[in-house]
Amino acid sequence: MQLGMVGLGRMGGNMARRLLRGGHQVVGWDRAPAAARALEAAGGSAAATLEALVAALAPPRAVWLMVPAGAATEEATLALRGLLSPGDAVVDGGNTFFKDDVRRARLLAERGIRHLDAGTSGGVFGLERGYCLMVGGDRDAFERLEPALRTLAPGRAAAPPTAARAAGGTAEEGYLHCGPHGAGHFVKMVHNGIEYGLMQAYAEGFEVLRGAAQEGLAAEHRYALDLREIAELWRRGSVVTSWLLDLTAAALAQDPGLEGFTGAVDDSGEGRWTVEAAVEEAIPAPVLSAALFARFRSRQAGTFGEKLLSAMRRQFGGHAEAKPGGGAP
Amino acid sequence: MQLGMVGLGRMGGNMARRLLRGGHQVVGWDRAPAAARALEAAGGSAAATLEALVAALAPPRAVWLMVPAGAATEEATLALRGLLSPGDAVVDGGNTFFKDDVRRARLLAERGIRHLDAGTSGGVFGLERGYCLMVGGDRDAFERLEPALRTLAPGRAAAPPTAARAAGGTAEEGYLHCGPHGAGHFVKMVHNGIEYGLMQAYAEGFEVLRGAAQEGLAAEHRYALDLREIAELWRRGSVVTSWLLDLTAAALAQDPGLEGFTGAVDDSGEGRWTVEAAVEEAIPAPVLSAALFARFRSRQAGTFGEKLLSAMRRQFGGHAEAKPGGGAP
Amino acid sequence: MQLGMVGLGRMGGNMARRLLRGGHQVVGWDRAPAAARALEAAGGSAAATLEALVAALAPPRAVWLMVPAGAATEEATLALRGLLSPGDAVVDGGNTFFKDDVRRARLLAERGIRHLDAGTSGGVFGLERGYCLMVGGDRDAFERLEPALRTLAPGRAAAPPTAARAAGGTAEEGYLHCGPHGAGHFVKMVHNGIEYGLMQAYAEGFEVLRGAAQEGLAAEHRYALDLREIAELWRRGSVVTSWLLDLTAAALAQDPGLEGFTGAVDDSGEGRWTVEAAVEEAIPAPVLSAALFARFRSRQAGTFGEKLLSAMRRQFGGHAEAKPGGGAP
Amino acid sequence: MQLGMVGLGRMGGNMARRLLRGGHQVVGWDRAPAAARALEAAGGSAAATLEALVAALAPPRAVWLMVPAGAATEEATLALRGLLSPGDAVVDGGNTFFKDDVRRARLLAERGIRHLDAGTSGGVFGLERGYCLMVGGDRDAFERLEPALRTLAPGRAAAPPTAARAAGGTAEEGYLHCGPHGAGHFVKMVHNGIEYGLMQAYAEGFEVLRGAAQEGLAAEHRYALDLREIAELWRRGSVVTSWLLDLTAAALAQDPGLEGFTGAVDDSGEGRWTVEAAVEEAIPAPVLSAALFARFRSRQAGTFGEKLLSAMRRQFGGHAEAKPGGGAP
Repeated sequence: MQLGMVGLGRMGGNMARRLLRGGHQVVGWDRAPAAARALEAAGGSAAATLEALVAALAPPRAVWLMVPAGAATEEATLALRGLLSPGDAVVDGGNTFFKDDVRRARLLAERGIRHLDAGTSGGVFGLERGYCLMVGGDRDAFERLEPALRTLAPGRAAAPPTAARAAGGTAEEGYLHCGPHGAGHFVKMVHNGIEYGLMQAYAEGFEVLRGAAQEGLAAEHRYALDLREIAELWRRGSVVTSWLLDLTAAALAQDPGLEGFTGAVDDSGEGRWTVEAAVEEAIPAPVLSAALFARFRSRQAGTFGEKLLSAMRRQFGGHAEAKPGGGAP
Repeated sequence: MQLGMVGLGRMGGNMARRLLRGGHQVVGWDRAPAAARALEAAGGSAAATLEALVAALAPPRAVWLMVPAGAATEEATLALRGLLSPGDAVVDGGNTFFKDDVRRARLLAERGIRHLDAGTSGGVFGLERGYCLMVGGDRDAFERLEPALRTLAPGRAAAPPTAARAAGGTAEEGYLHCGPHGAGHFVKMVHNGIEYGLMQAYAEGFEVLRGAAQEGLAAEHRYALDLREIAELWRRGSVVTSWLLDLTAAALAQDPGLEGFTGAVDDSGEGRWTVEAAVEEAIPAPVLSAALFARFRSRQAGTFGEKLLSAMRRQFGGHAEAKPGGGAP
Repeated sequence: MQLGMVGLGRMGGNMARRLLRGGHQVVGWDRAPAAARALEAAGGSAAATLEALVAALAPPRAVWLMVPAGAATEEATLALRGLLSPGDAVVDGGNTFFKDDVRRARLLAERGIRHLDAGTSGGVFGLERGYCLMVGGDRDAFERLEPALRTLAPGRAAAPPTAARAAGGTAEEGYLHCGPHGAGHFVKMVHNGIEYGLMQAYAEGFEVLRGAAQEGLAAEHRYALDLREIAELWRRGSVVTSWLLDLTAAALAQDPGLEGFTGAVDDSGEGRWTVEAAVEEAIPAPVLSAALFARFRSRQAGTFGEKLLSAMRRQFGGHAEAKPGGGAP
Repeated sequence: MQLGMVGLGRMGGNMARRLLRGGHQVVGWDRAPAAARALEAAGGSAAATLEALVAALAPPRAVWLMVPAGAATEEATLALRGLLSPGDAVVDGGNTFFKDDVRRARLLAERGIRHLDAGTSGGVFGLERGYCLMVGGDRDAFERLEPALRTLAPGRAAAPPTAARAAGGTAEEGYLHCGPHGAGHFVKMVHNGIEYGLMQAYAEGFEVLRGAAQEGLAAEHRYALDLREIAELWRRGSVVTSWLLDLTAAALAQDPGLEGFTGAVDDSGEGRWTVEAAVEEAIPAPVLSAALFARFRSRQAGTFGEKLLSAMRRQFGGHAEAKPGGGAP
């Protein structure tokens, strides 16, 4: 089928390529000329403007947005609201807050334009591995887009069948209509929240393994463990096998001491919104929040709160501060 | 090679079977006659007593203990200390505390007997999938046992090669000599600590997904999500793919509302010891500890601490208690 | 001075009484006739309607709202917007979300009406102990209201002077203009967030003390501690002395086993908003969030997340569930 | 009464002074000659050696140890075991691990020597404010020592009576026999665990208050709050009044930006042991553990675990690391 792709960066560019390989037609647009040229080299056509992109598509059109959540997505959606026709569809493939989907879908619906929110997981590996697509919004648009979704998704063969599961449904292909407007991004949001938790679990575990070599521990219980080999080991037959563990093994194979990193870890909105959703639902989420807070802390040095702890200790006990890097008695 | 197997339950019985299939000889012993009969049916030989098991093995012997950590392992180790000869080896395949390994290895070494601590992951799937083996202790014994370890382990084909990794080493087979006495169980302990964290991350995430259908949320942001389909979906192409997610999908396929469960979740020593190791190493482990505490809490109803919160609220605000299951304003 | 009080419940009624004792005039209104009668008995006058309350006050008027945050406060504010005159002031003494203050202050400002958000701490003890008042909003209105604020507040004598502090400022009286609209409720919100954290710290500590009597612990390290006496003990000279500890001691004196409580603990908005504010500010708040989550959990039995943990454990290990109340090996 | 004091540092020296002021006789010993001179100046007598100290006391003797927990206390206890006579008593006033008390009490009992473990709270303020004393061990020795304990403790007047409490008991004086050997230090351990939790609750709350001035927040919800005034304000009439809040107000009065601190916060054994005790008792302690972990983290820069998070993010998303101090999109 024919698809417009707005945003041809790391994600959008690769998705366009995967669609082209799957026999679809892609008309792309990106502010960066190099990205447009790359699309043409891959067999797509590049439009000079958003208007030209719309003009190049035959109705009912489908325009996939792969631009940063927030202002860029808002702007593109509003522009398309003015350019598209009733029956056309906008697909937001970014990491949009699900309440924004609901609002934008309403704005588009006023013009008879469909909206899909398509949470997209896969990262730089998606081109080869396929993208996991969590979709919410207008079901007729979802059904019309299924040929493209099926191409983007990893396909049934990407995982062995699940025991006791009655075969069938698109989830087995790697894409799913999750519910009404916002449902796709809601599911993607929680996906990322879980991702933070999983990552933090490995991070803490490997740090405990590494810490076993610490001076100060009794010699007979001190271990200089080879984390690279342990990550590799766990990839086979253990309970903790996962794709993130595969990546951990790869990262440790490249740089066993992770000396190329400072440890300042960014977070994107989904981790925050997942904690907020948990709070709104009155659901305890100690692991998901701890994982988020670890990232907040990782970007700071000597927080005000920690200084206050030191200040209180000096007040009541006359205690000097610890030395950074120092241990405890 | 020839191996003695003490304990022929769910783990030991299956491991014996996998060894037999791999062409090894297994002499087994278990208090339960049915387990002994099952071993014979699978082609092994069953000894009537531990003494008989030792007598049936040719030196240098290797006896694998697959009995509960704690008293049962202690007792079996001390008995073998009296029965084995210099050069023989005891392999503790259970979930023993690593400091106990160090102590027992010393006791055995006094008689010239080798000790290996072999953290074993794989559960009921191990028979077919293979066991991930994290081994510590006497390296000569490890090397002598490699034929058996290689059979028990999943083998290289169980996972694709790791990018940027120089090929080689037994970790790629699924077994590894991790270090001196206790190192194997230390690595297994942290493995299980991570496992708790991963499980809790999924548990919280799925609970947030389910909570999105809650009354009280604004209708336009309320979603009745199909968790079974979402678990299946995430198995393909997403960042959170893992073996635990495969099991989650299977569990939800069998019982989508998990109505067969009360939610009282046991914990075994490893999760606790991992938190203690983190504390001993002065390493923050918020996720691993939160996962452990969630299990502690799951087995209680109305803890004393929570009653104290209610009591304080009544004191300062005259507040009545919430209704169980009730929400908040 | 003269003040209107809307809402004469536990908080509003006592505040009116304290104002009357301080020589102020109070015109009150409440839907409940009994509350109105009680005000009259205490020397105030009760209006039959909100309109009558406004009519009974001389301009520039000050009307203090002491009604539940949310719909009731919104409704009263909008009604007063229609009834009051330029130069009059509305004081919101409830636990309003600070962003609502900003919005409502703007609505009132359109009519020249002032708005103060007055976070009020003190609970049922406030009548005698005084109320801690955290105020945001129009400074001219704050200054006009200071006579009333000073009466409501505990006063300088309520705490010994702070070392190294240059004397002066209203904080020493127990009331403070914290900043522009919303600042008072923002400070109150964080106050309550801290309160949750403090309460949970005591709750956990007392639970650990109580748990020391547990069967299963080694006899020589098992202690049947008298929590009532320990709470009393800590009130003198220890680092953990606090008003909440005083209340804990009182609660334990009344009911040492807290058998009158189920442990289902409510939460109000401030605890949630504090966590959300921390997330918005990218500030790690592990304690404040853990305290909130403990309350969420306290109102549930066997959460879905916990059932999922059990389901995973059955999948990979064939493990049966724990018995509620049961421990672990 | 007559008392030996071993260790005349910040704690021991002040305690000796308070005992002397109370009319007791103190014979002290310290390795540091200056500390010995200070004791003499305060009216005590200083022994040149531990042997001389013992010789200077009339049986039945009482020797109070106020030396660091661990090796110093072990050494002093063993030395006194050789020097004291049946009926004499050793009081360990340090922060000893309660299981060490049990062991040491047994060693002393072999010689007929009594042992008390006296958890001591009060810090540098204890001299004037009195010490809160949590005592375990031989009850006859406790009773014999009560005159000294009563002098050291703050006394009944230090806090108002507790409502609904039947008057009586030494807890109202500020000292208590908590139970058998180790019970005093167990209670002190949990006291310190709670202390960590309380401190962290304030630390997080004040950091959220400070963070409200952050750029990036909407101007209408951004507040430049005066933390010094807010700490002072909360000291009167609020739910969060406490001694730690008094100290916070003092610290902020001295240094409002806490610029004299780096924020590297030490921890001592009790916080760790409390978490371990909670784990041993299977009691969830999310707040107490989070408070401990915050201290661990405060002493590090860029932990290995955080580097691993960065490494995974680069693997799956090609993400660059955050800038330290940087926020998130």
